[in-house]
Amino acid sequence: MALISPSRRVRRTMFSDGVEAAGVKAYTVYNHMLLPTVFESVQDDYHHLKEAVQVWDVACERQVELRGPDAARLMQMLTPRDLRGMLPGRCFYVPIVDETGGMLNDPVAVKLAEDRWWISIADSDLMLWVKGIANGYRLDVLIDEPDVSPLAIQGPKADDLMARVFGDAVRDIRFFRFGMFDFQGRSLAVARSGYSKQGGFEIYVDGADIGMPLWNALFEAGRDLDVRAGCPNLIERVEGGLLSYGNDMTDDNTPHECGLGRFCDTQTAIGCIGRDALLRVAKEGPTKQVRALELHGGPVPPCERVWDIEANGKRVGQVTSAAYSPDFKTNVAIGMVRMTHWDSGTEVQVRTTDGMRDAVVREDFWL
Amino acid sequence: MALISPSRRVRRTMFSDGVEAAGVKAYTVYNHMLLPTVFESVQDDYHHLKEAVQVWDVACERQVELRGPDAARLMQMLTPRDLRGMLPGRCFYVPIVDETGGMLNDPVAVKLAEDRWWISIADSDLMLWVKGIANGYRLDVLIDEPDVSPLAIQGPKADDLMARVFGDAVRDIRFFRFGMFDFQGRSLAVARSGYSKQGGFEIYVDGADIGMPLWNALFEAGRDLDVRAGCPNLIERVEGGLLSYGNDMTDDNTPHECGLGRFCDTQTAIGCIGRDALLRVAKEGPTKQVRALELHGGPVPPCERVWDIEANGKRVGQVTSAAYSPDFKTNVAIGMVRMTHWDSGTEVQVRTTDGMRDAVVREDFWL
Repeated sequence: MALISPSRRVRRTMFSDGVEAAGVKAYTVYNHMLLPTVFESVQDDYHHLKEAVQVWDVACERQVELRGPDAARLMQMLTPRDLRGMLPGRCFYVPIVDETGGMLNDPVAVKLAEDRWWISIADSDLMLWVKGIANGYRLDVLIDEPDVSPLAIQGPKADDLMARVFGDAVRDIRFFRFGMFDFQGRSLAVARSGYSKQGGFEIYVDGADIGMPLWNALFEAGRDLDVRAGCPNLIERVEGGLLSYGNDMTDDNTPHECGLGRFCDTQTAIGCIGRDALLRVAKEGPTKQVRALELHGGPVPPCERVWDIEANGKRVGQVTSAAYSPDFKTNVAIGMVRMTHWDSGTEVQVRTTDGMRDAVVREDFWL
Repeated sequence: MALISPSRRVRRTMFSDGVEAAGVKAYTVYNHMLLPTVFESVQDDYHHLKEAVQVWDVACERQVELRGPDAARLMQMLTPRDLRGMLPGRCFYVPIVDETGGMLNDPVAVKLAEDRWWISIADSDLMLWVKGIANGYRLDVLIDEPDVSPLAIQGPKADDLMARVFGDAVRDIRFFRFGMFDFQGRSLAVARSGYSKQGGFEIYVDGADIGMPLWNALFEAGRDLDVRAGCPNLIERVEGGLLSYGNDMTDDNTPHECGLGRFCDTQTAIGCIGRDALLRVAKEGPTKQVRALELHGGPVPPCERVWDIEANGKRVGQVTSAAYSPDFKTNVAIGMVRMTHWDSGTEVQVRTTDGMRDAVVREDFWL
């Protein structure tokens, strides 16, 4: 692996000092920002995440803030998920689509108030699309990237750690809800959410000045819980079927292809810019879809590009994320498979960087 | 420095195999794509660039293609530069601004025909803004990222190398013009342009299948010219005052603050979305502006975050790019300085990562 060059353009976060002190070994770049990818090793980080609790610098999940009388209208224009029943205090996972129904991002929308929303984005400059739409439709809304950086607390001991810092009331936060909690006199949104299947929270840290104080408080409070710095873990997320925008889907894909049809209320999401295109897709169904795949043989190399899925010498899909799973003792993978070969149990071959592998399409991820 | 993790999301380019074979040591990520930053060392690459010729994988300068009857109208909506006199076959450096006059990108616009343009972008997902505007204003235009990847040939021997592969006619291409040249039966746009002050070309390689054949042909033809794989060089670009979007300017800045006022014809660029805001700026002038700065003392550390510029203990600006220049035997830097301190010869202090440095504002970059 090569090194990553420092520059201001690849932004540090309010937690970078802590991440460096914890001995980060590798990064990726996400929304023009550093996102740690390895501390001990991907395998060690994985085991620890499933056993204890980790603090993750996910500041790169930048917020796009919508504020003003047209905020709710604009939010509905962006997504085929029907937002009419959504109350303040809720988080919704929302596919964001363009006029052709192509995925532009798959963020979590946080409804702070009727006229104030945060879109906690995956890796694309979604703010540019949102600003372009608001400008073109002359909407009465302010759009901004506030100084708010998520810090994730993930792992089976996340509740215990969080309770020590924010009080026992955090235990009562329900999945994809958030509450306002006090830290050093600042009121922070704390949601039960996060990019792992191990449970935990995301704290929307509002103001860079309390970033490191909060980081340090969590490590201080969690010493006997074996709290460590961590990051979204490739193996764990593939096992759990957590998709990654840019890896497992791009603007080429509809939400239905990504298996996100259940988040599309295309009939009732009136105003959604991609609605016409998606009504067609919803009716006919996608011709390819995300699937879990198991790749036989020893550990696969890093999936740094699309790997073709083949059957009888013909291309029938592609693998976009893959890793060897120590717990399941096999290679776990996420791919997009044509309908002719997407039934579970279908035997296919995958052209990895290191050569052909036999593989099988699975019913489910490793849950 | 930490490592960079491989993933499909951080896209490889059509030249990555060549870059790896050439022994790339470090990357940055630019438009969700790998951009090499170091081969031998930043210093060795710098000396070689000024003496010989290099082939640069700048595929990350992605193209946003506009096609259709409203393409020219849309292009003018994006920029305060007056495009009415621009003929097909020309390249224009164009600031792109939002409705407040904030810089969204500083690309090169390539006019292929009246109804067909490429915007060769710096590091932001400009396509999202362009698509949002086109959608909101219901323009009759197709917007797309074609499979076109620039390959730059830079250095004093660039003309010689290019003539061997494309014929002597390439020598006649004038600055910021392009012509169509044949390679293996494919017609490619070749422009006299590039992100260095050493002269050279950018080839818009249309189709991934000829990426490596062209790469190999250039290395084959240039063996006795000491052709090497290279990349935009930090030292050389700072010496030359070549700004970097995301480093030296962001959407916080107007073109005038970036010293790009000469590319703004705000009076006549009718239709430009940021025109109202920029008319005000053009009239009153900016209150801060990009400047060359010299930082005294030994080599500075990497400028991986904004360094405050201070005078009498007050913040009067920020340095955003800096490097030690072997040729000029001093630290060269780019910063944004308030008008109270932007006159050449003004003594200031810069708070680098390693401590305070005395510095002076210069009249010009090191040309």
